[in-house]
Amino acid sequence: MSDNVYSVSKVVGTSGKSIEAAIENAIETTSKSVKNLDWFEVVSTRGYLDGGKVKYYQVTLEIGFRYEK
Amino acid sequence: MSDNVYSVSKVVGTSGKSIEAAIENAIETTSKSVKNLDWFEVVSTRGYLDGGKVKYYQVTLEIGFRYEK
Amino acid sequence: MSDNVYSVSKVVGTSGKSIEAAIENAIETTSKSVKNLDWFEVVSTRGYLDGGKVKYYQVTLEIGFRYEK
Amino acid sequence: MSDNVYSVSKVVGTSGKSIEAAIENAIETTSKSVKNLDWFEVVSTRGYLDGGKVKYYQVTLEIGFRYEK
Amino acid sequence: MSDNVYSVSKVVGTSGKSIEAAIENAIETTSKSVKNLDWFEVVSTRGYLDGGKVKYYQVTLEIGFRYEK
Amino acid sequence: MSDNVYSVSKVVGTSGKSIEAAIENAIETTSKSVKNLDWFEVVSTRGYLDGGKVKYYQVTLEIGFRYEK
Amino acid sequence: MSDNVYSVSKVVGTSGKSIEAAIENAIETTSKSVKNLDWFEVVSTRGYLDGGKVKYYQVTLEIGFRYEK
Amino acid sequence: MSDNVYSVSKVVGTSGKSIEAAIENAIETTSKSVKNLDWFEVVSTRGYLDGGKVKYYQVTLEIGFRYEK
Amino acid sequence: MSDNVYSVSKVVGTSGKSIEAAIENAIETTSKSVKNLDWFEVVSTRGYLDGGKVKYYQVTLEIGFRYEK
Amino acid sequence: MSDNVYSVSKVVGTSGKSIEAAIENAIETTSKSVKNLDWFEVVSTRGYLDGGKVKYYQVTLEIGFRYEK
Amino acid sequence: MSDNVYSVSKVVGTSGKSIEAAIENAIETTSKSVKNLDWFEVVSTRGYLDGGKVKYYQVTLEIGFRYEK
Amino acid sequence: MSDNVYSVSKVVGTSGKSIEAAIENAIETTSKSVKNLDWFEVVSTRGYLDGGKVKYYQVTLEIGFRYEK
Repeated sequence: MSDNVYSVSKVVGTSGKSIEAAIENAIETTSKSVKNLDWFEVVSTRGYLDGGKVKYYQVTLEIGFRYEK
Repeated sequence: MSDNVYSVSKVVGTSGKSIEAAIENAIETTSKSVKNLDWFEVVSTRGYLDGGKVKYYQVTLEIGFRYEK
Repeated sequence: MSDNVYSVSKVVGTSGKSIEAAIENAIETTSKSVKNLDWFEVVSTRGYLDGGKVKYYQVTLEIGFRYEK
Repeated sequence: MSDNVYSVSKVVGTSGKSIEAAIENAIETTSKSVKNLDWFEVVSTRGYLDGGKVKYYQVTLEIGFRYEK
Repeated sequence: MSDNVYSVSKVVGTSGKSIEAAIENAIETTSKSVKNLDWFEVVSTRGYLDGGKVKYYQVTLEIGFRYEK
Repeated sequence: MSDNVYSVSKVVGTSGKSIEAAIENAIETTSKSVKNLDWFEVVSTRGYLDGGKVKYYQVTLEIGFRYEK
Repeated sequence: MSDNVYSVSKVVGTSGKSIEAAIENAIETTSKSVKNLDWFEVVSTRGYLDGGKVKYYQVTLEIGFRYEK
Repeated sequence: MSDNVYSVSKVVGTSGKSIEAAIENAIETTSKSVKNLDWFEVVSTRGYLDGGKVKYYQVTLEIGFRYEK
Repeated sequence: MSDNVYSVSKVVGTSGKSIEAAIENAIETTSKSVKNLDWFEVVSTRGYLDGGKVKYYQVTLEIGFRYEK
Repeated sequence: MSDNVYSVSKVVGTSGKSIEAAIENAIETTSKSVKNLDWFEVVSTRGYLDGGKVKYYQVTLEIGFRYEK
Repeated sequence: MSDNVYSVSKVVGTSGKSIEAAIENAIETTSKSVKNLDWFEVVSTRGYLDGGKVKYYQVTLEIGFRYEK
Repeated sequence: MSDNVYSVSKVVGTSGKSIEAAIENAIETTSKSVKNLDWFEVVSTRGYLDGGKVKYYQVTLEIGFRYEK
């Protein structure tokens, strides 16, 4: 794998259901325009509230993808 | 929304079930004494252990709420 | 001044005009309900956008005030 | 707004006049090539000096924009 | 202890004597208006100087207390 | 509990299912070789991707355990 | 510019007027005793309050200057 | 140089030889698709191991480039 | 001292008396099972409270020790 | 106090006795060559060990002093 | 690779020659007592000086290794 | 070594050749005006680019030196 180069994009996913669903929404949407997604790291976990309940989770990720040679 | 002012409180929620349930417990308890809760951010995710298993998750949040004018 | 105790509150001010105006809105609103405000520190500077322009600045402060003895 | 996905770009704006003008230059230039700009956060504020005076401010922002569905 | 909720306050104590005395002043003053204090964490240790000597230590704490059910 | 001493180990758990399952795998494996596990704190949440989907979550924990006297 | 060496000084400027004026006061005062000032970075933005208003802004900078060969 | 705007990309370079070679691979690959590369900053230095030896270094950079006017 | 290798362990000491006593308890307990302790660094200073007073200080250290050749 | 300018120096004090004594040694030594010392902030607390005991504490401070006009 | 668990050790390597040689010394010494070393991350790069020259580099790493099932 | 006091200076070295050469340039230049240099720590590693290649590395160090008694 030596000499590979990767690019890292920052993406925010949201979901009314769970932290994992917000992560998966971010990755699924990114995979429509970028190939070779390889890893992600959670940068922050936030959410918005309405009437004293979680309206949706909002998770910021860094997503790494491999440059095509 | 310009010129609104928000206050931010730090709150710790716990739950034996999941990270999301600990977040929701923190928000539900806070909403009993504070109005206009608007957003939250996860500051740390910890937990306590018993017999090699998670006894409960303990999630620290910052919760933002809008000052009444 | 030895043996004084201070409390620190986190407050978010907004303004469509400037970073300083957002700071001053946060302090003015806080001073209506808390006495003896003594110092502040900027924690983050954010803003919201509309049509490629800054709609308003949003500055998060920690504000210190002296406990009455 | 649930299930929206946002992308975050890091951009550096400069201005000889003020911190706010450097922020606005960064946003105005970014808005020429990216649509749906939604928010920004200031990451660092630097500047360059000449003859003991500020030549220009240089502000690094993260700018969030909404993915078109 | 599962499902308990805690609140976290930021408080600054001062003392001319020692770091521990500054911590204890902050906690003693806070305990006069808040019940169920449970833990603290030191956030920063500063001090003020006069004539090349320490005039007083100034310790910033986060103090956690349990919400009454 | 005064005068107890604790040791803190850094451990990475993985799971194809959820963040909580990755945490529980890390703790279960650690509990096979270390006794008196007391608490954990999440240090980072990452994951690996395959075909635009999450292959597995990878959560780094610090786990505290009490020294036997 | 290769092989140049720079020194970095930490300086705090104050101003009753604006954040930019506090930065410029710090730089102007430093330039009286140090030559070849090249860049600065804002480390923190604080301020002191009086009667619920900003008395003065206090901005901490790191200022870089080129060593004379 | 006043009023220039720069964009910052996060890129990961790898090399079996040295930290500098991993940096140079990241920059060379980036320069094939982006013009006007101006500076970089090392964000993290990692590596992968095989048989108790470094298999390759993996250096994450932020690379700044000037927007064409 | 060139070519020496050190290992770093994270240890938490507690004491009802002072921050220094908590540090010394952590080091004394560690020295019973590890040789060649060389240095420490304080990572965090916390404490637990009872009846509005400090019950015990809890100091987290990283302790470095030299590998035997 | 508006328009004052302060300089900040980083200094490391050591003491075989306590954290406070290490701080005071750093300040006393600094005050022999610099006037108008005004405040300090603890940046890190370390120490060196010998035979499983603390040989000396080593505290790194930032010390602020007022520029003479 | 799902459900694997890794442990992370903090190790300091030194070398009079280069940063890479200090990293490799840390890894080589660790591999004598631990199997399945998988990755490392540089935590800090320091060094000691003698007569105005680098006597040795001292690099702190976190090294990850796979638990044997 | 107890009761020694050290001062810490921030210095930036540059080199077209390698990270180690940039570090050594910073130390060599500092040693011409300051005696008793004792240690350094790398604070950041940056560089400037020209034509898609590294023009020079720019390494920021904190350098510690012992106060003469």
